[in-house]
Parts: sequence; C-alpha cells; structure tokens
Amino acid sequence: MLSSKAGSDAAHGQHSSYFLGWQEYEKNPYNALQNPTGIIQLGLAENQLSLDLIESWLARNPEAFGFNRNGKSTFRELALFQDYHGLPALKNALVDFMSQIRGNKVRLDPRKLVLTAGATSANETLVFCVADPGHAILVPTPYYPGLDRDVQWRTGVKIVPIHCSSSNYFRITESALEEAYQQALNQNLEVRALLITNPSNPLGTTLSREDLNLVISFIIAKRIHLISDEIYSGTVYDSPAFVSVAEALTEENHDEVSTRIHIVGSLSKDLGIPGFRVGMIYSNNVDIIKAATKMSSFGLISSQTQNLVLGILSDREFITSYVRENRKRLKRRQEMLVSGLEEMGIECLKSNAGLFCWVDMRKLLFCNAATTLFETEKEVWAKILSEGGLNVSSGLSFHCSEPGWFRVCFANTSEQTLNLAMRRMKQFVESRRRRRSPTKWFLQLILRHSQPER
Amino acid sequence: MLSSKAGSDAAHGQHSSYFLGWQEYEKNPYNALQNPTGIIQLGLAENQLSLDLIESWLARNPEAFGFNRNGKSTFRELALFQDYHGLPALKNALVDFMSQIRGNKVRLDPRKLVLTAGATSANETLVFCVADPGHAILVPTPYYPGLDRDVQWRTGVKIVPIHCSSSNYFRITESALEEAYQQALNQNLEVRALLITNPSNPLGTTLSREDLNLVISFIIAKRIHLISDEIYSGTVYDSPAFVSVAEALTEENHDEVSTRIHIVGSLSKDLGIPGFRVGMIYSNNVDIIKAATKMSSFGLISSQTQNLVLGILSDREFITSYVRENRKRLKRRQEMLVSGLEEMGIECLKSNAGLFCWVDMRKLLFCNAATTLFETEKEVWAKILSEGGLNVSSGLSFHCSEPGWFRVCFANTSEQTLNLAMRRMKQFVESRRRRRSPTKWFLQLILRHSQPER
Repeated sequence: MLSSKAGSDAAHGQHSSYFLGWQEYEKNPYNALQNPTGIIQLGLAENQLSLDLIESWLARNPEAFGFNRNGKSTFRELALFQDYHGLPALKNALVDFMSQIRGNKVRLDPRKLVLTAGATSANETLVFCVADPGHAILVPTPYYPGLDRDVQWRTGVKIVPIHCSSSNYFRITESALEEAYQQALNQNLEVRALLITNPSNPLGTTLSREDLNLVISFIIAKRIHLISDEIYSGTVYDSPAFVSVAEALTEENHDEVSTRIHIVGSLSKDLGIPGFRVGMIYSNNVDIIKAATKMSSFGLISSQTQNLVLGILSDREFITSYVRENRKRLKRRQEMLVSGLEEMGIECLKSNAGLFCWVDMRKLLFCNAATTLFETEKEVWAKILSEGGLNVSSGLSFHCSEPGWFRVCFANTSEQTLNLAMRRMKQFVESRRRRRSPTKWFLQLILRHSQPER
Repeated sequence: MLSSKAGSDAAHGQHSSYFLGWQEYEKNPYNALQNPTGIIQLGLAENQLSLDLIESWLARNPEAFGFNRNGKSTFRELALFQDYHGLPALKNALVDFMSQIRGNKVRLDPRKLVLTAGATSANETLVFCVADPGHAILVPTPYYPGLDRDVQWRTGVKIVPIHCSSSNYFRITESALEEAYQQALNQNLEVRALLITNPSNPLGTTLSREDLNLVISFIIAKRIHLISDEIYSGTVYDSPAFVSVAEALTEENHDEVSTRIHIVGSLSKDLGIPGFRVGMIYSNNVDIIKAATKMSSFGLISSQTQNLVLGILSDREFITSYVRENRKRLKRRQEMLVSGLEEMGIECLKSNAGLFCWVDMRKLLFCNAATTLFETEKEVWAKILSEGGLNVSSGLSFHCSEPGWFRVCFANTSEQTLNLAMRRMKQFVESRRRRRSPTKWFLQLILRHSQPER
C-alpha cells in the first residue's frame, strides 16, 4: 500500500541479464595478479583507451582542476554557482566540441544546449518534455537496456519496439517503423516520438544519410518527435563517416520538422569520463529548451566539474589530437576483437563506431524441442559467464528480436586482458562445438531459419 | 499537441514573484563599485559567511582537489567511477557530518544513505518513491516555493497545504493537519505523505520535540510517510537546539513507523557549496533506499566533487571548528538584521536557524476597498524592489495564508551590503508611512483582523 508504482516498478529493467552479469562480475572480478581466474568484464561500454592522454594533459595543466585563475581564487564563485543554465563558457566549448566530432559540418548554437548530469538524465528529461504517462515512444531493436529505465520508469511512458533484423544488418526499414506504429495504435497508445541511438549501442554502426532521411520522413508523416541519442558520436573510428541528424537537418530543407528533433550528447564515452556526469540536450525547440533547462535542476553538473571540463575542452589543439588518437586506438582494438573472433569462426556485424562489437553467436545455439532459441541464448550467456569467465551481454537484454547475438565491449580493459578474454572465449567455443550432436545441429538449422521470436 | 503536460505545466511555479524578483535582480544587480544603485539581493538563501574558512582549508590542503593520493594518480579511478552507490568513504563521512550537526545524539548508518545531485533531486526522488500521479502530499505553509516544482511538477502529485497561522508563530497544529487531510479527501486525493522542512524555510525556526511528536502521531494515525527536509540543520545558530526526526525516532519507540520516515540532507546551506550539488536521502526503509539509489542515476554527484567533499569532511577537526564558527557568524548576521528592522518598528518572527528572517510587514499594508490585502502585499513587494532597490520574497510566494509577511535573507551579502540594504529599507518604510492616510489605516486595521485569505 505504501510504496509507489515507480518505487516498485519492473519497468526499471534491473532484472535483465545485462545487470545480472555486472553483479556476477562484481562478486569475482578478474585481476591479473590478485584474481587471475576471475570474471573478465566485457559487458561495460567504458572507454579507457585514451584516459592517459587526459591524465598527461592534467599533469601539464594543473590550474584546470585548481581553484585559481590568473592568480585569483575561483572557489567562492564556483561553490556558489548553481545557475541551471550552466557556465556560459562551457556551453560554448561544448558546442564547439560537438561540432568538431561531427566533422565541423554543422554550426551549433550554445543557446540551444541544456546541460544534464549525464545522458541518462538527458534522455529522461526529453521524454518528460514530449510525452505524458500512457504515451508511447518507438525504439529500434536491439537497444541499450538502460533505455527501459530512462524512457519508461518514472515517466509512465511505454517503449514500443521497432523490430530490426539481421537480414539487412539491423537497419531500420519503413515497414518496421510502420509496423511498430501500428502495434502502438493497437495497444491504444498515442505515439509521441521515435528514439534512435546513432552511433548505435549495441550495433556499433552509424546511420547512413539514407537511413536518417527515412527516419525524418517518418516523423514528418506521423507528426512526432525524434530523439537522437548521439553519445557515441566521438567514437566513430572508421568509414562511413558519422552523419548527425543535426547535419541532415542543415542540408535538407526541414524547417517544419526541425523543432521536433532533439539530440542527446555526453562526454562519458567520447572522453571516457562517465564519473564526471556531463550530458547534454541540443534542440531547436525553444519551449523544450526552456522546460528541459528548468528540469535540469534535478541533475545539475557540479560547477567544479563544469570548470574542469571547460579547461580541457578549451585546449583545442589537445582535443583535436585526442580525438584523432582515440579513434586510432578504438579502431585497433575493434580489429583485435573482430580478427580474434574470426579465428574461432565467429563473425561480428561490420561496425565503425562505439566501444563494442555485435557478435553473431548463432552457431553456438543448440537447442532441443523443449527449449526455445532464446532460452538457449540465455544458457550460452550463463555458460560464457560461469565456464568461460567472461561477462558479455546477451542480445535478449538489448531486446533483440533474434536469438544468438551478443554485445562484446573492447575498450574497458587492457590489451593483455582482452587477449586473455579471447583465449578463454576460444576455449569455450571449442568445448561447445565438441558437445554439439548432429541431431541438435540439424534442429538448430531448422529453427534458425524459422520466424524470429519476440 | 506536441509537448507534454510537464513541459508546459504551471505546476513548476516559475511565475511566482519569488523567481520574478530574481530575474529583476539579475537585470540590475547591486555592486558597490560598478552599480551602487543596483538591486540588492535579499531573496537568495545562500550562505556566503564562512566560505573563506573552506577556501583557506583548500589552500592548506591542495591534494583535496588534485588527482593524486599518496603519490598515485586518482584520475582514472575517478573519471570512471559512476557507481550509483557513491564513494563508500564519502557516505561514511556524510553520516558522521549529519550526526555531528545533530549534536551526535544519533548514530547513522551509511547503508541507509542515498546520494543525489542536490536536495532538489532528493525531494523529487522521495516523492517518486512514495506517491503516484494523482496522490497528495501535505505541506505546512509557508513553504519554500521550489517545493511546487520538486514535489508536483514531473511526478503528477499534488501538494495540499496545511495552513499555519501567525497567531501561534506558524507552528503546526493537530487541527490544521486534520483540516488539510480532509481537504485532500474532499478533492478525492489519496494522501501519501506529510513533508516538513526542519529547520523551516522561510520561518528560520526549528520544530520542537513536541511538534515532532505531533507530526509522528499524525503519520502513524493516517498510515502515511513523513519526508523531513533538514537541509538547514547545520545552520541552527541559537537555542532551542535542533531536534532531527532521526533523534525523535531513536528516543521514542517508533519501530512501526520508522520505515515511513525519510530525511533529506544537503551540503548546500551548511557548507555554502550549492554549486557542487551534494544532496542526500536518509531512510530506514530498505525498499525506498533501493529504489532511490536506482533513481539517483538521473542525478549522480560528479565523482570529482565526491572526492573533494570527502577530503573536506574527513578533516574532523576543521569541520568541528567550521560548524562552530559558521553558527557564530550566522547568529551575528541575524541579530544585525533583526535589530536593524526593529529600529524601523518592524518585527521578525523569533528564529534560531536558517539564512533568513520571516519579517512581519503587516504594518506596511494599506489597502482600499478595491484591493485585497494580498494584492497590497504584492504591491509592497514590487515597491520594495523598484523604489527600495531590494529583492525580498513575499509571503504569498511561500504560500503563506496571511498577507504581510516577507522572507529576508541575511547570509548572501557582505556586512556592508546588508547595512546599506537596511538603510534603503528604512527609507522605504518611512516614505511608506508618510503616504499612509488615516482612512487607509483604519480600513487596514479592520481587514487585518478579518479571516486570512487563501
């Protein structure tokens, strides 16, 4: 009787295997010296590859984290600064950075920026701005498990999935969009927005200009909002180049729709600083900027951290070299993972961005008549964790419509640890193959080509 | 059609004169050198009196804000730390601090603490945990205008005011509680909680043990939650000593109700660091701690700032002397304001805490038959702003049931500025008195003794 729906709601999604894997990892974390048989965390989309660059920069620029500027103390000014508009200089630096990682093809306006304590808050804030309880938001699958929390939990809004399929590399299609929209109507839900992540988590792919045009045409036709979560925009390490919806808007004549398109950004992935909680919303919609700015009272970025980030971003030369080097390192890691898996006969979806690969392990699903392929996926996931000592994330936890896909992160460990992870994975794959009986193999073939379950 | 209820909702309360005064101040802020005729801000409950103490401490302890500990870099660890449980050492330090400013009469458990990006988020989070859209929360008047936003805006919960009266120094009474409860029922609202602020903003008073017992008996009888916003607990500068609900719980046998009592804390007022966004929830309720911890994803405290605050709070000797000195300075300031106003014939509610006085300006309300006393209050407020050059806050913006009360802050300016503010106030009061005609005075007397408007 006494707790609220939100307080007890399963919409938070915490029971997903995504979070269960983290819990298992925390009980027995791998450490080369202290716990060499522990679980290796491949389920965390963290970018640790270029932290040393920022660390060295800070060593060279200690004034960035101190409370002095030109010999004067800044402590009082920062301690008291709680204006929810944020430090103006930081907003200028952030739009410059956003523009830079979008290839300087768009000119962004700091007045259209809202600061939030991380992208988690940015996504929820936008949902609060565009939808009321009982409304629906369409989200292409597979999608980041945290969106269940960010979009649905406290807002009372429902996610209706757009089912994407491996047959066309999980690209969004017109018919999938239309089908999801109809699904919402069938459930008597008014659709208020489409939310995409570009680059995609978990796919590691970027949307093409053609994909973006499809998406924009759809939101024009349905008169709904588009939330484009672009928190991985600085991690695009390979061609095709990233096309932000901001760019698509500038180039096409999309005046009518431009007030219904909102971008979510963050420094957590691009600079690898999730602990500092720097997220943002960018929108052409004056009313949404106003409402979101007021909502940012619920999650302001510490002024101390605003000041630190301002210092780092203001060194344009450093940022330019950081972005270049970070991409190079990400590419190297992704290639390591892809080629390592290839040697085991396991393929990844071709990707060009993000901190992870979307791995096709359908070959490892052997199921019998009593189990579904999704049950088998879960079994494989649990065995990779318990026997293989690796926490990867199962496709089901990303609401993937097809069983057998897994997200594997490559940027949150050292190269040695990733190599060890691949040796463990190889061992697991080989032992799994040895256990496979011809009957099971045949059954699997049939099932694999049957309709995907949902 | 396209924006949400929350996005356009007046429940945010931004049109209150409380915020309008801030806007006017920002257009023309007083500065002794650059803008000596500008508006003096007396509407901002900021504690600037003891920032120099922290500033000196930081100068002596530069490692507190650096990225080094015992010669090792902490940057990587902090940049990546985004565990919503917060730094364990910080939680230990925070419960020690909470306990200290409660006279070390309660022993608090860090496992019952949730960190939030400021008290704004802490209050909203608790409301999300205990109530659903359409439920009601009772709040004694006068209350902090921001509560309209924190309690109602995104949650869909309604505040039902408990009307307190100057006749008993705005103390909560059993009949006022009961009346508000019935009001809620008459509006078909299910009451889920009572929210008190102790020390009170704007009254600057603390609840007595007797008051707390009344409140606890009420929530037992009605089977509802109690949210005790104690963000001013470190500002109690005079007797009677502060009694936290945590203390009342320990001393009395309140097992049954103890899981329905939740405390909101903050360092914004006690340490004067609102820019750093350090808020917290303390509760005996395991489920609420779990849900609130998960909700803290929407407003985590920057790990950089968690680390800084940990450093400051860990120096117990410094904190003890800070708390003592801060109280002394607050007391001195309050006495300055109270005696200055007394000289003009204006009285304040007797107060012992907070960063403001609750000032009785009923003598300055002269109204004619065509206006209400609340309209006159608004007129006086606007004139103090435009003619007096002072931004004080009108009682109406604090939902006070009686016209003629104003909140005046005393800790966000220098002593010189406060003195100037009082000279300006004196001038305003005198010119107002000169304008008062005997007829108006008589009418006012009659109206003052009529029923308070709501």
